Amino acid sequence: MAQNTSNYKLSAAAGNLRYNDILPYKVESGGVTREFLQKVIDVLLDFVNDTNDRNEKILDFHHPEEMQKLLDLQVPNEGVSLQQLVHDCATTLKYQVKTGHPRFFNQLSCGLDLVSMAGEWLTATANTNMFTYEIAPVFILMENVVMTHMREIIGKNWVNGDSILAPGGSISNLYAFLAARHKMFPNYKEKGIATIQGQLVMFTSDQSHYSVKSCASVCGLGTDNCVMVASDEQGRMIPSELERLVVERKNRGHIPFFVAVTAGTTVLGAFDPINEIADICEKYGMWLHVDAAWGGGLLLSKKNRNPRLLGVERADSVTWNPHKLMGALLQCSTIHFKEDGLLMSCNQMSADYLFMQDKLYDIKYDTGDKVIQCGRHNDIFKLWLQWRAKGDHGFEEHMDRLLELTDFMVKRIRDQPDKFYLILEPELVNVSFWYIPTRLRRMPHSPSREQELGKMCPILKARMMQTGTLMVGYQPDDRRPNFFRNIISSAAVTEKDIDFLLNEMDRLGHDL
Amino acid sequence: MAQNTSNYKLSAAAGNLRYNDILPYKVESGGVTREFLQKVIDVLLDFVNDTNDRNEKILDFHHPEEMQKLLDLQVPNEGVSLQQLVHDCATTLKYQVKTGHPRFFNQLSCGLDLVSMAGEWLTATANTNMFTYEIAPVFILMENVVMTHMREIIGKNWVNGDSILAPGGSISNLYAFLAARHKMFPNYKEKGIATIQGQLVMFTSDQSHYSVKSCASVCGLGTDNCVMVASDEQGRMIPSELERLVVERKNRGHIPFFVAVTAGTTVLGAFDPINEIADICEKYGMWLHVDAAWGGGLLLSKKNRNPRLLGVERADSVTWNPHKLMGALLQCSTIHFKEDGLLMSCNQMSADYLFMQDKLYDIKYDTGDKVIQCGRHNDIFKLWLQWRAKGDHGFEEHMDRLLELTDFMVKRIRDQPDKFYLILEPELVNVSFWYIPTRLRRMPHSPSREQELGKMCPILKARMMQTGTLMVGYQPDDRRPNFFRNIISSAAVTEKDIDFLLNEMDRLGHDL
Repeated sequence: MAQNTSNYKLSAAAGNLRYNDILPYKVESGGVTREFLQKVIDVLLDFVNDTNDRNEKILDFHHPEEMQKLLDLQVPNEGVSLQQLVHDCATTLKYQVKTGHPRFFNQLSCGLDLVSMAGEWLTATANTNMFTYEIAPVFILMENVVMTHMREIIGKNWVNGDSILAPGGSISNLYAFLAARHKMFPNYKEKGIATIQGQLVMFTSDQSHYSVKSCASVCGLGTDNCVMVASDEQGRMIPSELERLVVERKNRGHIPFFVAVTAGTTVLGAFDPINEIADICEKYGMWLHVDAAWGGGLLLSKKNRNPRLLGVERADSVTWNPHKLMGALLQCSTIHFKEDGLLMSCNQMSADYLFMQDKLYDIKYDTGDKVIQCGRHNDIFKLWLQWRAKGDHGFEEHMDRLLELTDFMVKRIRDQPDKFYLILEPELVNVSFWYIPTRLRRMPHSPSREQELGKMCPILKARMMQTGTLMVGYQPDDRRPNFFRNIISSAAVTEKDIDFLLNEMDRLGHDL
Repeated sequence: MAQNTSNYKLSAAAGNLRYNDILPYKVESGGVTREFLQKVIDVLLDFVNDTNDRNEKILDFHHPEEMQKLLDLQVPNEGVSLQQLVHDCATTLKYQVKTGHPRFFNQLSCGLDLVSMAGEWLTATANTNMFTYEIAPVFILMENVVMTHMREIIGKNWVNGDSILAPGGSISNLYAFLAARHKMFPNYKEKGIATIQGQLVMFTSDQSHYSVKSCASVCGLGTDNCVMVASDEQGRMIPSELERLVVERKNRGHIPFFVAVTAGTTVLGAFDPINEIADICEKYGMWLHVDAAWGGGLLLSKKNRNPRLLGVERADSVTWNPHKLMGALLQCSTIHFKEDGLLMSCNQMSADYLFMQDKLYDIKYDTGDKVIQCGRHNDIFKLWLQWRAKGDHGFEEHMDRLLELTDFMVKRIRDQPDKFYLILEPELVNVSFWYIPTRLRRMPHSPSREQELGKMCPILKARMMQTGTLMVGYQPDDRRPNFFRNIISSAAVTEKDIDFLLNEMDRLGHDL
C-alpha cells in the first residue's frame, strides 16, 4: 500500500497542539508525546513495508523546480502543529527514493538492514557523543570490542593495533595519510612542511577513489604530488608502473612516502595486487594504505577473501566501510592501524580542558584526543547490534550470496549477447555492461558502437527514474564512454530481481 | 519506572527467530519484523520517559572493567535471537548516561529534543546519502532552504553565499581554513605549499577550540604557525595583541592569512570582539572566520544577539552548530560562506565517474563535489523538522529562556557566597565557579585556596557520578586550577533543577 499522507491522524487533543505547548517535557503528561512519536513510527514502519514491496515504485521523480512546488519546505516564524509534523514526515518519505528497494542497484550502499536501522533509532534516542567513556560508557566499550574483532579479521598481527570510526571513507583515508606523515616526519605536526627538505609525494592508481587525491590538496602537497599510477584492463594498479614512478620521483629529489592501494575500486570493483605493492613499499620505505572501503566486507568470507585481499595484513592501515557491503546504515566507516598509539600522537592537541587527565575512571578508554573531529557521532551501535544479529557466519553467508548473485547476473548477460555487452569479468559485485537497443544489435562491436551505446545511458537512466521501476548507475571512465555499473549489495535482491532488471532495461530501452 | 530489561517480551514465535531466518524481508511475513521493531520502539519510548523523570538517576556508574563483566558485548559467530536483540537494546540504555536528563549539565550538547529525535528516526529509515539530488531529492531541497535561512540570519549580504553541513564543528572549521587558503592562493590546490614564498600563519585566541590549531597540523602549516593570541580576563581575544602579533610575523617575512575568532568559547563562553578584529583583518588582508559553533544559536534572539555577535556579517565564514544551543540531535554542524562557489572550486576533484554532468535534472543541486567527505550523512532532516516545530519564534524563546536560567543561577550563587565562588560574569550559558566545602569557608579567597578548591573538583565529580543524581563538568584553564563549568543548554531545565544542582553539590561535597 502506497503511503497516503492523510492516514496518520493524531487525536484532536494532541494533533492541534504545537511543540512549544508541550515543552518542557513533563512525565505526567507524556501521553501526548508518546502518541506523537508512535504516529511517526507508524509512518516509518509503513515506509519499511513499502520499501520491500516490489509492487511499489522506487521513486516518484520530479525535477527540483516541480518538487519545490509540490512541497511546503519553508521554516516558519511560528511552529506548525504536531499533526502537521506527522504529515511532513509522511510527505518527505512519499517523495524520497527507496534506497532499500530490491530494484535499487544504484549505489555502493543499497538495502535497508532492519536491525541496523533499529540500532540507529536507539543511537538517536541515546543522543550522546563518542569522545569519552564518561558520557558513552557502553558505546565506547562496544567500539573497542568490534574494532578489535575487525582488526583480528584483517590479520593476527593487527590485534594490538588501533582503530577509529570516521564519518565516511574519505575521512578514514585522510586519517591514514595523517598517521603516515606523522610516523615518518614526527616534527611535521609542530613545524609543518617547511621542516622537510624535499617534496613529499604519494601514489595511488588512476582508478582509486578521489578522496585519496583530495588528501594531497587538503594536507598541502598539492594534487600534482599525488601520482596516479596506471591500471591494467581489469582496473588493477600495475606494480611495475608504480615502481617506475617512485624511482622517477626519487631521481627528482622528491620523497615518496605513501601508497594507497584500492581493494574494490568504485567503478570496476577491481582489487590492486597488495602483495606485489607491499614488496615495493618495503623496498622504498613507504607507508602502505589499503583503501578497502568497498571491498573490505569480503574479509568476512573464507571462500572469497583470497586472492582478492591477499597480503592485506602487510599494510600499515586499512579503510573498511561496514555501510557498504555489510549493509550497516549510513554512515559507518572504520580505519585500522597496525601500530597502536599513532592516532593519539598524531592528532592529539592536548586539550586538557576537554579531556581531563584526573578522572575517576581509567582514561585510556577516552577517544576524543585521537580524532580530528572532537565531537563524534555514535556510529558503532548500529554495527554492533547488526553483528550480534548476524554473527560472523551470517555476514559470511551474505558476502557469498552477493557474489553468487553477481555470477548469476554475469551469466544472464552472457546468455543474451544481442542485448547486453559485458565489459569485463567482475572481481566484486560491480557489473559493468552496455545495454544494446534493437537498432544497434547487428552492428559489430567497435569504438563507434561504444560511443552510440554511451550516449544512450543517460536517456535510459532518465526513463528508469521517470518510470520509477529501476535504478542502475552509469558513468564514463578513462577507457570508455558512459556504461552501466550495476551494484548488488542489498540482502533484498533475488535472482528474480536480476531477471527483472535486465528485462526492464530492454522494455524501457529497446527503441533507443 | 526504571527500565527492567525483562519487560520487553516478543511472542514466542517471533522471539525465538534469528535475523537470518527472516531475511530477505518478505512483505507477506512482515508481521514478525513489525513486532520486533515495535518492541525496540517500546524500549526507546520508556527510555525517553525515564530521561525526563527527575526520580530516575542520570547514570548507573561502573568502571570500565566492571562494566565489561556486567554486559555481554561479544560479537558471536552465530547470530542471537530477536528476543536477545531487544534485550540488548534495553541493557544498553540501562547503562547509558541520560544526556537529556534535566540534571545533566555536563556538555555543550545537553537535552533530548523529541522532534529532532523523531527526525533522526526518519533519517535512519530513509538511509540515504546527501551527495546527489538523484538519491536524496527532498533532503537536498531542505538543506537549501534551511541553509539559506541561516545565512539570512547571519546577515542580509549573506543570502547569495554558500553553506554545507559537516560532521561536527571541527570539520566545519577545517572547511573555513581550506576555503580561505584556496581563495588567497588558488594554485595551492594543485601545486601545494611549495608554491608559496613564505610561511603561512594563522591566528586564534588562547581560548579557542583546539580544532582551529588542528587545522595547522592537518594542513601542513604546523601548529607553531597557529599563533595563539592572548585573551582578557573574560576570555575575549585582545585585538591589540592580535595586531602586534600579525605585524611581528610580517616582519619575519611570514604571510598572515587567516584569523579565527570565537563566538562562545568552550570553557568560559566568551565572545571575541568581532568588529574590532574585522578591522584588523581588513587592514592586513586576512580572512575572518567566526567559530560560532557554540554561541551561534544566539543569532536567533533579537534581544541577546547583540552586542555578543555584533559584526558577524563582516566575516568571510561562520561555523554554527545547531546541535549545541539549538538542541538538534548530534551531529548537526553548519559552515557558511559569504561568497558562493568557493566550496566547489576548493574541494572539487572532478570525479565525473561519481558526479555525472549529463543527468536528467539540473545538477546544480548536487553537493558531492563541494565536500571532502564524498558520502555525507543526512544531518538536515532532524533540524528542518525541529525548525518546522518551533519556528524562528520558538527558537528565540528557547535562547532567551536559557540566558534567563543562567542569570538565575548566577544570582543563586551570589546569594550563597560562603558555598560558591563565581569566577566571572558569564556572557553565555557557561557558569564558571568553585564549590566551597565547609572547612574552606572561612579562609579568605587566594591562590592557595584556589588550589585547594581545584583539587576537590575531581572528587566531587566522582561523587556525582557514583550517586548518579547530577553531572557538571570541570576543567583547569591557563589562569586557574580545576573549576566547575555548568552548562544550561537543555529545554528540560527549570529553576528548581538549578536549585537542586547547588543543593546537591553541597550535600555531596560539604565534608571534602
